[in-house]
Parts: sequence; C-alpha cells; structure tokens
Amino acid sequence: MQVSNLLFTKSAANALQSWCHEKGFESIYFLCDTNTYQYCYPVFKEISDKVIVIPSGETHKQLRMIETIIEQLVAFGAKQNHLLVNLGGGVVTDIGGFAASIYRRGMKCINVPTTLMAMADAAIGGKTGVDHQHLKNYIGTFYQAEMVLISTEFLATLPYEEFISAWAEMIKTGAILDAGLFKMIEEDALLDDILKRCAECKQSVVQMDVFDRSHRQLLNFGHTIGHAYESHYLNISRPVKHGIAVAKGMMAELEIAKTSGYLTETEATRIQSLIQTKMSVEPMTLAEWTEVKKLLWADKKNTGTDITFSLPVAIGKGKFGIKMKEEEIKI
Amino acid sequence: MQVSNLLFTKSAANALQSWCHEKGFESIYFLCDTNTYQYCYPVFKEISDKVIVIPSGETHKQLRMIETIIEQLVAFGAKQNHLLVNLGGGVVTDIGGFAASIYRRGMKCINVPTTLMAMADAAIGGKTGVDHQHLKNYIGTFYQAEMVLISTEFLATLPYEEFISAWAEMIKTGAILDAGLFKMIEEDALLDDILKRCAECKQSVVQMDVFDRSHRQLLNFGHTIGHAYESHYLNISRPVKHGIAVAKGMMAELEIAKTSGYLTETEATRIQSLIQTKMSVEPMTLAEWTEVKKLLWADKKNTGTDITFSLPVAIGKGKFGIKMKEEEIKI
Repeated sequence: MQVSNLLFTKSAANALQSWCHEKGFESIYFLCDTNTYQYCYPVFKEISDKVIVIPSGETHKQLRMIETIIEQLVAFGAKQNHLLVNLGGGVVTDIGGFAASIYRRGMKCINVPTTLMAMADAAIGGKTGVDHQHLKNYIGTFYQAEMVLISTEFLATLPYEEFISAWAEMIKTGAILDAGLFKMIEEDALLDDILKRCAECKQSVVQMDVFDRSHRQLLNFGHTIGHAYESHYLNISRPVKHGIAVAKGMMAELEIAKTSGYLTETEATRIQSLIQTKMSVEPMTLAEWTEVKKLLWADKKNTGTDITFSLPVAIGKGKFGIKMKEEEIKI
Repeated sequence: MQVSNLLFTKSAANALQSWCHEKGFESIYFLCDTNTYQYCYPVFKEISDKVIVIPSGETHKQLRMIETIIEQLVAFGAKQNHLLVNLGGGVVTDIGGFAASIYRRGMKCINVPTTLMAMADAAIGGKTGVDHQHLKNYIGTFYQAEMVLISTEFLATLPYEEFISAWAEMIKTGAILDAGLFKMIEEDALLDDILKRCAECKQSVVQMDVFDRSHRQLLNFGHTIGHAYESHYLNISRPVKHGIAVAKGMMAELEIAKTSGYLTETEATRIQSLIQTKMSVEPMTLAEWTEVKKLLWADKKNTGTDITFSLPVAIGKGKFGIKMKEEEIKI
C-alpha cells in the first residue's frame, strides 16, 4: 500500500495551489475547527470557499460529528475524486481522515497539520478515527491521505504548551528509531530540521507496517503506561496533554527497560535527561503509579493478561511486543 | 489485497465450528436481524450466545445503527482479533461488515448470507456500508470478510419474491462475465451449482479490482438505469425490490447496447428472454422511462455530464466505462 507523500514547504497555500492544479481536482473542500478557521484558513481562501467548520477539541471527536461532516459533503455534492483538505491539529486530521475514508467508500484527502504534534506525528501514518464516549480512537480506519503538507508557518499562533507536548513524540521517535534524530534534539538543531527528520522517520516505519501489526508498534514506546496515565487523569476530570502523559510514560518505561536489562543505565538516563530538559517533566509519583497500575490491565494495547511494551534497547533502536507480567513491572 | 475465501457447505454450523476451532478465535459474536435471529441463528447457538440483534430492513441501515452495534461490541469487550459473524441478507452483511471495519480500526468478520441475493452477490466483494438518509451506501468502506460461508439450508425460510429478485444478479453476472454461467441458468441447472459458479465468478472479478476502479465495474450492468428506476419508485413511496429494478435496468440497457451496436440483436434478445422467463419482468413503460431519464443525470455512478454504462458485447463478455450523452440513450 502506498503511504501518504510528505511535502515540506514555507508557504502551504502556494504549495497546495500548485499541487491541486497539477492533480486537476474538480472541487476542493476544507475541514477546519473554529481555531484553524480563524487563524489558518485565511491563507487558503483563494483556493476554495467551501469550508466545513467543526467545534475544536477532543470532546467533539465522536461519530455524530462524522455524520455532520458527511451531511455537508453531500450538500456540496462531493464526489470520490474530489479533495478534502484537513486543516488542523491531530483531532481535525483524525476526524477528517475518517470522514474521507467512509464517504462513498473513500474520497481523496490531504492533511495540512497546524500543530507541531500533528506535523511530527498525528497527521502522518493513516490512522484515522473518533472516540466512542471515553474510549479513544475506538472507531476508525487505516486510510492514507494523498499527501501531508507540512509548513511551520502555522506554529506562530500555537500556544507554548502545545510545543512542549510535541517534544514527547519527537524524543520518542528518536529514542526508539533514529539515533541521528535523538542527537539533533540533544544538540538543539533547528526545529524545522528536527521536524522534517522526525516526520520522515515516522513515515518510513509506517511504510514498513501500514496496519500496525509489527514494526509500527515501536511507536508505542511510552504509550502503554502513558495511555493509562492519561486515562487516570481523565477519570478524575483533570485531563492532561497527551504529550505530557507520553513523557511520563517514557520515564516509567525507561525504568522498566533498565531493571529488566533491555537498556543500559547510561542510555536510559540519557533519554530521561532529554525529556526533563525539553519538557520539564518529572517522573510520576508513587501515588500516581498506584492508580496507573490499576488501569494498565485495562489498556487497549494489550490482548492477554500480560502487558505489552515497546522499549528501546539502545538509543535509536527498539524492540516491540515485549510481554511482561504484573510482578515484573517495577518503576 | 486478499479477498474473502468462499466456503460452500451443507451445514453452516458444522463448517463454522470447525473453521473457528482451526483459527482459534478467543471470542465470537453474531450479528442478526430479527428474522435471522429467529430462523437462522438457532443452528449456531452452541457456538456463541453473544448475539447482537438489529431490526430488519433497509430503513435501519443508517449510521446510528453502527453506533448501537459498536456499543454492544464494547459491552462484550470485543477485540480486533475476535470474530463478528454477520448472519443475514445483504443489509446485515453491509452493516456488519462496516461495523467490523471501523471497530478499533478493524476487527475480524465473516459473512454467512441467508438470502439467495446475498449468497450470489451482496455478501461477496467487501463493499460495506450504510445509507445516508435516502442516499444508498453513501457511508462505507472496502473491507474483506475473512470468509463467506455459503449454505443453501437457509433458503427454506426465504419468501418466493426474494428468489425472483436474486435471479437478476445471477443473470447479470452470466450475461456480462461468464457464458458458462449464463448457459447453466438457461438450461435450468441445479440452483446450488448455479449459485456456486456465480459466487466464484463474482469473487474472481473482485480479486482483479478490489476497489472498484476498473473491471469490477462490469458488475454495474443493469444498475445505471436500474438504480434510477429504484430511486423513482422510492421517491413516490412505492419501493420495488432491488432485483426487479436491476432486471428492468438490464432490459433497457440491452436496448441501448443493441442500438449503439455493442451487442447483436440475437444476443440481446437471448438475454432479455432469460430475464423474462426467470423473473416474469416486462420492459419498463414509456411513462416510467420518462421519469427514470430525469433521475439518470443524478445517478451516483456518473462523474461528469455523460452517463456511464457497463454493457455486454457478447454473452459472457462486457465492456465498462462506456460514456453516452443524453441524446444517444434511447430504449
């Protein structure tokens, strides 16, 4: 299966216009949330005035929003060979990709990520979907956008905390897949360069395993525990940023990698230091860990009674499908 | 892409039990409508008592039904590697296949068709979906069931009109793809033999073109006009069976094939005669044709101002993507 092309640009509007012209799309529609409609869509308004605007935020990432989008696509007379441009962060690209994948059994779409997190991770890889009540991404498809158009011009309007959060996925990708990327982050390379390397790294692992059955699971590093951490705080109505949860998850999973002998103490410490430097995140407290452990056994990434981890075995090299029993998991 | 295996059997329950045992499914769920729950599910009740029952009929083939099914899958604790068995006619296999395709980005499913139409056509090929209000199959995916298990044991409880309707798809398949199948129908071969040949023929054309971009469009013979005919009667609240609409569509499209020189008069007449013999269907009246023509230009299978047909060029051989202008279309 062909995975999405990545296109890096300094001007998304020009790049999109040329690309659409070359492909000869008869009609183009934009999907925005209320934020990206206000801050990002204006540069594209010459390309198309057919815009679908959805409320911003994860709470609207539900099946009924898909029905709303499809209603508007029908009203526009959208056809399979028309183009939907998903303009936004991970929530918009998840929702828009899913709507495109099921509208008349699949219409063309591209992602134009507007957050650092979406540029580095969420907009790439073809995982689409919505939540089912509180269950994250329980309804979705694997569906490759025609292209992911990446331009850091949109980051100017992004809140600081969104930057912090994105570092988690970039450090994760470097730590488990790409020593060069990890070093670039350590050495404070230019953000554009780090981002490009991270996006390309993600794309290449997706290319190896589109349906997330093997190698792609390396990207779950930090997410087994991170997801449980995120759920815990959601359950007590104090939601945390996904990136923060992943960082906490990585800190804990690095302890496990160390004590179980997968990773040397030196390398584990090096990754933990980078997380602390870039994100000012401390390891979770014992009280938190007690709560998180309870949720771990309900984590959707596990299929049996064991917990499955993806762990680095060296900087830039990982192992997936590591199964551990409750008593083996100590942080 | 791997398309669904076909398995023909005289006892669906035994065949399913052995197959599931061999594959080692941890959990199995059934999706039935109220009819198949009553008449067909009982033979499977030893295999699993986890059953999702939906109301029968096309009117319930909507996105909200998918949400209901997913809610029940969540309640059962269904995982991606568990099995959903879609037990029913085309509506159930369309809905169930779609639900399976989007539940946690895809869980395993098989189809056990219980109507002749579904055995010969609808349950095979991986087109899943629901309607969006009155728009047929506007929301869906291409998703291959692990297997289509075909047993004519269920036909004993099927109303006579459902048999009649299924002949349309079988004659269509023979007329445009398989001269041998066409001859078997003409010569009144055993229904089991005709069905097996038809199902295998459909499967082989799907294998050539899973996503319906080329050869598979041959299966649209009779459907360009048939779909408009069906819509017309739906609009005036006198719905007709899909098979009857397809038969009317084939009768009309054969006239077009004849006058435009694609098919000889002798062969066109031979196909028309078989439709009349098997289905007691007459060509549509001039009054009907006047209404149908208006709807043709709104038909979802067309992407420009021309109308696209798939027509036989000889018995068992067809051509797809034939574009015609309004003035060329005469019946």
